[in-house]
Order: sequence, then structure tokens, then C-alpha cells
Amino acid sequence: MRFFSDNAAPVHPAVFAAMAKADVVDTAYDGDALSKGLDARLSALFGREVAALWVPTGTAANALALAALCPPFGGVICHRDAHIQNDECGAPEFYTHGAKLMPAEGAGAKLTPESVAAVADAIANDVHRVQPRALSITNATEYGCVYTPAEVAALGALAKARGWGFHMDGARFANAIVHLGCTPAELVPHVDVLSFGFVKNGGLSAEALIFFDLALAEDTKRRRKRAGHLLSKGRYLAAQLHAMLDGDLWLDTARAANARAATLAEAAGDRLLHPVQANELFLRSTPAEAAALRARGFDFYDWADGEIRLVTHWASPEDEVAALAAAITAL
Amino acid sequence: MRFFSDNAAPVHPAVFAAMAKADVVDTAYDGDALSKGLDARLSALFGREVAALWVPTGTAANALALAALCPPFGGVICHRDAHIQNDECGAPEFYTHGAKLMPAEGAGAKLTPESVAAVADAIANDVHRVQPRALSITNATEYGCVYTPAEVAALGALAKARGWGFHMDGARFANAIVHLGCTPAELVPHVDVLSFGFVKNGGLSAEALIFFDLALAEDTKRRRKRAGHLLSKGRYLAAQLHAMLDGDLWLDTARAANARAATLAEAAGDRLLHPVQANELFLRSTPAEAAALRARGFDFYDWADGEIRLVTHWASPEDEVAALAAAITAL
Amino acid sequence: MRFFSDNAAPVHPAVFAAMAKADVVDTAYDGDALSKGLDARLSALFGREVAALWVPTGTAANALALAALCPPFGGVICHRDAHIQNDECGAPEFYTHGAKLMPAEGAGAKLTPESVAAVADAIANDVHRVQPRALSITNATEYGCVYTPAEVAALGALAKARGWGFHMDGARFANAIVHLGCTPAELVPHVDVLSFGFVKNGGLSAEALIFFDLALAEDTKRRRKRAGHLLSKGRYLAAQLHAMLDGDLWLDTARAANARAATLAEAAGDRLLHPVQANELFLRSTPAEAAALRARGFDFYDWADGEIRLVTHWASPEDEVAALAAAITAL
Amino acid sequence: MRFFSDNAAPVHPAVFAAMAKADVVDTAYDGDALSKGLDARLSALFGREVAALWVPTGTAANALALAALCPPFGGVICHRDAHIQNDECGAPEFYTHGAKLMPAEGAGAKLTPESVAAVADAIANDVHRVQPRALSITNATEYGCVYTPAEVAALGALAKARGWGFHMDGARFANAIVHLGCTPAELVPHVDVLSFGFVKNGGLSAEALIFFDLALAEDTKRRRKRAGHLLSKGRYLAAQLHAMLDGDLWLDTARAANARAATLAEAAGDRLLHPVQANELFLRSTPAEAAALRARGFDFYDWADGEIRLVTHWASPEDEVAALAAAITAL
Repeated sequence: MRFFSDNAAPVHPAVFAAMAKADVVDTAYDGDALSKGLDARLSALFGREVAALWVPTGTAANALALAALCPPFGGVICHRDAHIQNDECGAPEFYTHGAKLMPAEGAGAKLTPESVAAVADAIANDVHRVQPRALSITNATEYGCVYTPAEVAALGALAKARGWGFHMDGARFANAIVHLGCTPAELVPHVDVLSFGFVKNGGLSAEALIFFDLALAEDTKRRRKRAGHLLSKGRYLAAQLHAMLDGDLWLDTARAANARAATLAEAAGDRLLHPVQANELFLRSTPAEAAALRARGFDFYDWADGEIRLVTHWASPEDEVAALAAAITAL
Repeated sequence: MRFFSDNAAPVHPAVFAAMAKADVVDTAYDGDALSKGLDARLSALFGREVAALWVPTGTAANALALAALCPPFGGVICHRDAHIQNDECGAPEFYTHGAKLMPAEGAGAKLTPESVAAVADAIANDVHRVQPRALSITNATEYGCVYTPAEVAALGALAKARGWGFHMDGARFANAIVHLGCTPAELVPHVDVLSFGFVKNGGLSAEALIFFDLALAEDTKRRRKRAGHLLSKGRYLAAQLHAMLDGDLWLDTARAANARAATLAEAAGDRLLHPVQANELFLRSTPAEAAALRARGFDFYDWADGEIRLVTHWASPEDEVAALAAAITAL
Repeated sequence: MRFFSDNAAPVHPAVFAAMAKADVVDTAYDGDALSKGLDARLSALFGREVAALWVPTGTAANALALAALCPPFGGVICHRDAHIQNDECGAPEFYTHGAKLMPAEGAGAKLTPESVAAVADAIANDVHRVQPRALSITNATEYGCVYTPAEVAALGALAKARGWGFHMDGARFANAIVHLGCTPAELVPHVDVLSFGFVKNGGLSAEALIFFDLALAEDTKRRRKRAGHLLSKGRYLAAQLHAMLDGDLWLDTARAANARAATLAEAAGDRLLHPVQANELFLRSTPAEAAALRARGFDFYDWADGEIRLVTHWASPEDEVAALAAAITAL
Repeated sequence: MRFFSDNAAPVHPAVFAAMAKADVVDTAYDGDALSKGLDARLSALFGREVAALWVPTGTAANALALAALCPPFGGVICHRDAHIQNDECGAPEFYTHGAKLMPAEGAGAKLTPESVAAVADAIANDVHRVQPRALSITNATEYGCVYTPAEVAALGALAKARGWGFHMDGARFANAIVHLGCTPAELVPHVDVLSFGFVKNGGLSAEALIFFDLALAEDTKRRRKRAGHLLSKGRYLAAQLHAMLDGDLWLDTARAANARAATLAEAAGDRLLHPVQANELFLRSTPAEAAALRARGFDFYDWADGEIRLVTHWASPEDEVAALAAAITAL
């Protein structure tokens, strides 16, 4: 019974079906109708004109986004526990050609205008110091917390006031939308580029890179090719995205994942280290307690001393969730 | 009726079936059994211990291979018409951090020891000139020609004598093997890293990067992650490779593609610009002739003034091939 | 008697004197009055507002210029025999983060609009091919030939029409100016960035990087620091430039070098492989003839089979020049 | 009366004299006898075979050293207040092609084996996290504190035990040696590459990059050229280093700087934020006190709220030092 990662989830049948439907001789790369239809499809979703590129991983999406927003001699302010800082083996540094990530603080891996300004204001504006040129936030965060539209707007306004690019890592954007009950458009104020995740949410190998600043998209098409991320049979990636968007499947799958996490959260009670607003839970747990859960067949990540992480996904079996909730309660 | 590119081909049903079979909750990234089984599977195929990594594109495979073989301040000798030189938007330069591609000559996009030495010997060995550090060949070449094992061995021996890394871009390695009737092991003498292509040959989104020099593989795992090419649901890529290797499916599909090209080659006769040894044909053709073929419903690439390129693949319909052969004969 | 390189020349006494005068406690980096005075000084020289940065080498100047003009995924068209292509160990690739140099043809290492267009027009405008984004010429060229203002203008107009940056490597800009008898302003039509050389012409360790496009200069200040080229005692570099500009010393020294080359050119007669318009001569010479010259004490570079290179400089002793001229005549 | 920076100091007359002596026609780049003599000269100083390269700046020295020790996908542990982290505009990231600096803690900008291990041990050894591959310390530190040979040895042993490269930024190595009274050889246990500073200590534009691991030097010669740091008239840089080493001038100038700092330290008493072991002082000072000192003609750096930095150098006038000491006492 795996509560290790939403990357462990299977692929939604509708995604597979869409790939099968795309399985004909067609134009290579992104010249097919499905790929070419993404701009319009995502523009409709976000209520304004966007450019949408598929890429196979969230790391590629994030790193391409940052390369579009930050020059090699600039810096990207992000949370100390951000995925781009800790979990991408330096992809942002590779794609930006050596920009510097600048870690900032905040509970639940959420930045605040104050914590961001504290980092930036400590940097003398001379040629000796790397200057911040972009701000990157993750929504939902690495700790399963959600920025509200107002919080995003406040951070975006700060970024714009300082002349920075503004990136949102939305690997779990769907979970945030579902938690908030807002529209996608409402959750991206001031955002220049969004990494819009689908793989953790039912997809197989397609994420969407959304440019609200259209001018940035053209160069990124070249960077994508140069990075080896322009798949020759791109129609199978585009098909995944369309399938997830059809009938708001992406919201259904995220809703399912969040609901399962909520069930576990109720059981966890005051063991919770962070509010549970998406599909991740961080619990206080002694080594003995963690061992007890494992003995009952539950698999999960030891996050830190005395902390464990549980992740649900769209396909987490309801009976396994119930069993885990009971096991936690029984601790 | 498309003879534009083997990238346009659909995915082999066995590949889809293998992906469906892998569609369960499993370990993320490359921690699943299918991914972990690739080393043994490919070691068996090549008759010696190799390290095998999946990546989603041939460009990623090539660029990671070159980064493993050539330092940023080195050069890679390749054919003037090589894919890495012309068709990857600078991916080798990106991944190697600025190494220099050094174009050499040769009929049919095939290098010879003489043409390689001519490039290298013209470079003074001082710190002002970028020094060659790797040699890269494509087999089958961009013009559908095939290096024999002896030809590969001669180039490899040159590379080793000069202390260079030796890379083979095997986007169409299967077509070369089928043409030669040799074993995979026989076709890689001295090769350090092979980009072993599957996508043009029936796959969806998985190529194999094969390290004969095992020491190079470890760092490449980090470079792969850093490049955003470590897919979180890697089992679906590994499954594709296993499916293609099962029962030598990869040879069957390549054999089918080559046979279709041979049919067209027979029709093309002395229009052929290069011997047809794989699944690509380059034909002399006036604009009027090209237009006539297009008018009959055939789609293909205008390669250069008075030259067209035709590409077959494993699923090119036999009737379309026959029709095209007849149309060419009728010109 | 050395005719090997103008890099072998000593430093002009006026340059040393200016450095001695600057030898006081002063502001570090480029905060001193001499450094801050360069913009005005060079703006006056070029008759319009420019930004001027000192750097210690021509390679640094060229590479920073190209980094300002060409993105990592772009290409720089230059002559096949350009210094940036052959003699900087890949500095352009390092500073641009992997842009591709695109060699073009032309007699005397001079490009023409036709030879440049031939390279560019052969590149399909898709994401697979690296697209040209800058044009770089050397004036005087690596073969001691000089572009006229009209020739520069024609190339610059082509660059601008295509949306490219336009760079001039002026390591021997002074020799070109003296040969043409024109003003510096007249020789830089359409030029965005000029590497204005002083070290081969009497300086010690200071070249000027001139931005006619002012917007590019600010980022380059950061790139310069990041590259380790912002010397902490920058005033000693600025002093060199001021000394060379004082009383047009830079023209006097170039005139001296050119005159010595002219003396040798007259002796060389139809041995000359290129017109002698600056301070370099390329001569047909059998190995026996080269040996004979060496036996008489002359040192020089074997350029290619049957070709030697002779370089004069501002301080080449007149008697040595006369002796060499006589020796050539006597061959 | 400037106590702003040792970069503001003039050049020692002996350095100028040596440059004047080198001012003859000679071989370009580093082919001259002075440059070629550096290996032997520095090998003698360190009591074992080293390779020694001149470079014009400490930033270049540090960045080239780190590029030699750390791959693009690796990390460099350094102090949070290290020059490489804060004052080089990302030069380490540029030269290493995107390695990650990993800040560690320690009083006086001195790392300890414990603080280094704390950073390293928190990094899971998987492909998602950048792994430390080098350790860099500064001696004397950015706060004017000195590592003893035993402290260097302990850190070096840790680095070697973990398989990391070990770099010492010795911009003020001379000040550390003088403070400790040890030999240069005694202060570099386990060090692979030393940035041996001369510019802050009387030089003009030459630092020495010392490779104790000789194998690393060859590639660095190419990196140096590629970075534009192989000056064409290198003999003038080599001459500076020889002049500083002649008769242990480098120790005399450092002794002078340290003595002046000691005078100020005595006056500062318990205002001192760090022990004064080199030529830098950090003092508690109210804004009013800082203003009072400035009103008396003293120039210095406001380090942080309520903190000022004073730096002495080999040529700080004794009367100015005495005046400043008196002014501090009078506060």
C-alpha cells in the first residue's frame, strides 16, 4: 500500500485512450493538430491568450521557464525547500547557464512578500553581487500548502515592481485549484510562466509549459529543442494534455487525490506539521510509530527525524486510504 | 501517403501493450523493475557488460553521450551533414557546455579515417586551438548509408589511438544491423557510447543510451536528471524498450522498413544519389517531377535543389509503397 | 630579429608613464576617474555616445561582445579563418553558453554580403537548425586586409536587415584606420560592439570594448565581473587606454607598424599571398627559403605549407626591417 | 585617508621595476622565460612540485580552480560569507557551468569540519540532489581571521575522505602566513588548488593559481585561454610575481599591512567583532560614530547595521593609521 509519491500513480485510462486514438501516421514533432491545438485550448482555460508547450517532465518545464526569465548572471528567489532548489540536480543552473538560486524562508514552503524582500534587500546593487531577476513559487507547495490568489498577487506585484520575472511551479496546480475552488485564471496573477503539471495527476509523460508573456515562448521553442525535449512523436504528449482537459478530468483526479488526503488528515489530527490543502501530509511520527505503520504494509517517505510524508493520488485505493487512516488513529 | 519521416510512424501495438501492462502503481523514476532490468537486458544483447539508460529522444541521447565524452573546451569531429551538427539546435553545444563540432567530409555522410585525420591534423596542438576530444559517427547515416563493422573498427581505432571518445548515433542502428546481417556486438567496436534508437523503429518515446565504458554512466545519470530527462514514470519508457527487444521485434520492424525502401530503390534506379542501405532514399528529381508525385498524393521532403528524400518505416502501407514505386517508375 | 607577432612588442613608454602616474591610492575596480572617463573619451572619438569598458585581452573583448549579441541557441557567422573561430580555444562558445560559429568564405579573410548570405540562406528557418543571430568581422583581418567603410556598411546593412547583431573584432582597428585614412566613426557603420585593440599596438594589458548599442553595456558589466575580468586595480588599465589616445598615439604606433610592413611588402613583391594593408604579410616561401631567412636570424611563423607570416609592430627596429627586406629580395 | 580596501593600494615600486625590466620584445602569451620559470619558483616555495599559472584577478583564479575541481552537476561547500558566494557575480557558476555553491556556517567566516559535515550530511545521496564535490575555504577569511595549519588539515582530511576537491582562496594568503609564522608549505595540507593572491599585497594585475594536483593544471591552461585570461603579454604578469617573491617581498608587504591593522585593533578594543589576525577589522559602530570618523577624513565600508569594516594595506601611511587609531580611541 504505497503512499510514497504521486509519481507512483498509474496513468488514467482516458489518457491511454487518447494516446491510442492519436496512434496514426502523422506529422512529427509538434506539427500535428493536437500539438497545434494546445495554444487555443489553454488560452480558453486561462481566459487570455497564452502559448502552451508540452514537455515530458516538470523539471524540464521549470528549468525552461527559469531560463526564459533569468539571465545567466541573475538570481532566482525561491523557497529554501523548493523543488527547483533541492530536487532537480541543478537543472535550473544548467538551463539558465549558471544563475543562482536564492533561498528564502516561509512556513509550509510558502514565501511571503516580506521573506522575499528580506533576501533581495540584503543584496547590494553592484556588479559584485548576483542580482535577483526572477521569483519562483510552487503552488501547491512542496509541503502541500496552497497560495491563495491574493497571496500570489501580492508576490507577483512585488516581482513586477522589482522588474523580475515571475514563475509558478504548478506540479500540483490542479490540487491547489480544487482546494481553492477558484478558476485557473484567478490563480495566476502576474505570473509570466506556469509549469502546469499533469503527470502527478493522471498523465504519463506530458506537462504543459504556459507562457502568459507570449514573447518568451518563441525562444523557449528553440531551448526546448536544444535540450532534447522536442519529442519526435509529440502528438502522443499533446493527446495526454487534451485528455486531461476534456470534461475537466484534471479537476476530477485532483479532487480525488485531495479527498483521500483529507481523510488521512482527519485521522492524523495534531500530528500534522502543515495544514493539508492538497495531496501531501507531513506527520510527526516516532521511529517506532513509522515502523508500526510499515509493518502493516504502508509505504511512505521518512522526511526528517521524527517526520514522515504521505502522498495520495487520484488512484489511491479507497480501502487502502481507510486502512491507513485507521492505522494512524490507532497509533 | 506519407514518406516524409519515420518519426511520423505510429507506435507498434506491442509497445502499447507493454505500456499498458506497466500501468500499475510502481516505484517512480527508474527505480522500477523494468528500468532496473535494462542493464542486464542490453548486456545480453551486446555480449558484454553495459550500462543502459532510457531517455525520451535521440537528441537527448546524443547530447548526453557527447557530454560524457568531451570536455567543454574540446571538439567533436563529426560529418558535415550529421544530425548533431545540423538538426539538434545546438544540443551538443548545450550539453557539453560549449564544445565545438568539427565537420569532416565523406560520401553518403560516412566519415573515413582519412577525412577525420585531415580535420584533426590541421589543428595545431596548442592552447589557442580547440582540440578534438571525441569522434561521432551515425550508423546508418543521415543519407541512409551503413558503416560496416570493419569501417567502424577503423574509425574507432583512430579515435582510441588519438585518445578520443567514440560515439555512435544509432537512431537507425536497427536498420544498419538488418542491412549488414551482423550482431549488435559486431557493429560497435571501440564505441564508448551508443545512442540506440527505438522511436523511429516502432517506439513511442524511449531511446536507449548504452555505455560500453561503464564509468561514464554514473555521471550521466546525474546529467540526465539535471537535463529534465529522468521521467517520473520511467517504467513506461523501460517497457517500450523491453517490448521492442522481445522476440527481436526491433529487427522485424527495421527489416520491414528496409524492405519497403528497397522496393522504392529498385524503382528509382539511377535517380539514386546514395546507395539505399537502410530506410531512406535520396533521389534526383526535377521540381516538375516532385510536383507530379505530390499531385498523386505522396508527401516527402525537398532535400535540396533537384533532390527529394523518401523515408519508409515499419508501418508504411505496402500498397502505398507499391503505388509510389509505380509513380517513380512512371516519371 | 622577431617578426613573429605584434604581441611580442614591448609596451610604449607613454603607456608605462601613464600607469606610473596612476600609481596612487584610489578607488578599486572601475570606480576611479580614469575608468569613469572612458565613456566620454571614446564617445568623443567616435562622434556619438558610446559605452566603453576596459578588459585585459582581445579574447575577452570578443567573447563578451558575442555574448551580448547572440543567445546561447543562436549562431555567429564569421570567416573560416577568424580569430574567434580558430585562436581563442572556444571562448565565444564559453561566453555565449554554446552558440555556434558559422564559418563563411572570402579572400583575405574578408567576408562579403554574398558569402554571408550563402551561409545564412542554406539554413532552414525551423527549430532544428541553429539560426544566425550575429555577424562578426575582423578589421584589419587575420590576413592583414582591410574592409573599407563601404564594405563594412554593406555587411552591417545585411546584418541589420536580418535582425542580427554586428560585431567588429578590431584587434588591429588602428592599422585599418591608418591604412584607410578615415575616422574611427566612419569605419563602424551599423556596428553594435567593437573590440578596440590596443595591446598589439603599444599597450600592455588593456583593450577597449565599445558599445554603440548602449543597452548592451549594462549586462556586459555583470558578465565582465562574472568572467573575472573586472580587475581590482582597473585604473592601471584605464590609464593605458588614455595614454594611447592622448595625442593620437594609437595612430602613430599603427602608422609605424604599417610602414614597416610596407617596406617588407615592397621587397616581397609577387611572393605576397594577400595585399598588405596593415602590419601582417603572408609570403609564398619554400622550406629552403624559410630556412635561409631563419639562418640569418629572422624569426617568424610557418603559416602553412609553403607560406610564412611576417608581422611588424610599432617598435620593430628599422634596421631589422631593412635587413629582412634585403634578405627577402635576395632570396 | 582610505581604509576602504586593500584593492585601493598602489603598486609596489619593485613590481613596477620588474615590469620595466621585462619590457623588451619577447615571446607572446606564456612562452617567455619569466612565465616558464614560475613552476620552478613556486615549487621551491612550497617544497614540492607544483604547476603555477598567472591570472589577472582573484576571481579568475578562484573560478578556474573550482572548474578544475567540481563538475557542472556538483556542489562546492563554502562559507556563507565567502567571496566566491557573494562577491564574484556568479563567477564560480559561470566557470563550472552551473555547479551549486552550498553555504555553511562558522564564526569569523571560518568553516569547521562539523559545519561542513552538517551541510553534506543533510544531502541525500541520490540523483535528485546536487552532491558536494569540492570544499573551498578562504585564508585569511573575509573577516580577517586565519585558519591554522591544523585547522586546514582537518578540513582537508574531511574533503579527501569524502572524495572532494579542496580549494583555498588565498587572496590574503600572505597575511595568514605572516600571522601564523609558518611556511607556505605548512599552510596547504590536502589543498589541491590554491588561489595565491598578490594584487591586494602590492601587485598590479597578477595572481598565481597553484596546482598541487598537477594533472589538473593542463586542462586549466585551456580553460584559462578559453576564458580570455591568457594575456598576450604575459611576461609582465610573470614579472610581477617574481618581483613579489624576490627577497620575500610578499611577506614584508603583508607584515606591514598586518602591523597597521594591529595598531588599529588595539585602539578598537572591545568594539572588535572578530579577532584581528590579518589586515581587516570589523568594528561595532553607531551611525553617529561612523559619521564622526568620516567627518575626520577617514573613508571605509559600512559592513552592516552598526558595523564598519577597516582595511589596511602595505602602503597605508603610518600617520593616517595613527590618526585613525586615535580617532577610534576618542569615540
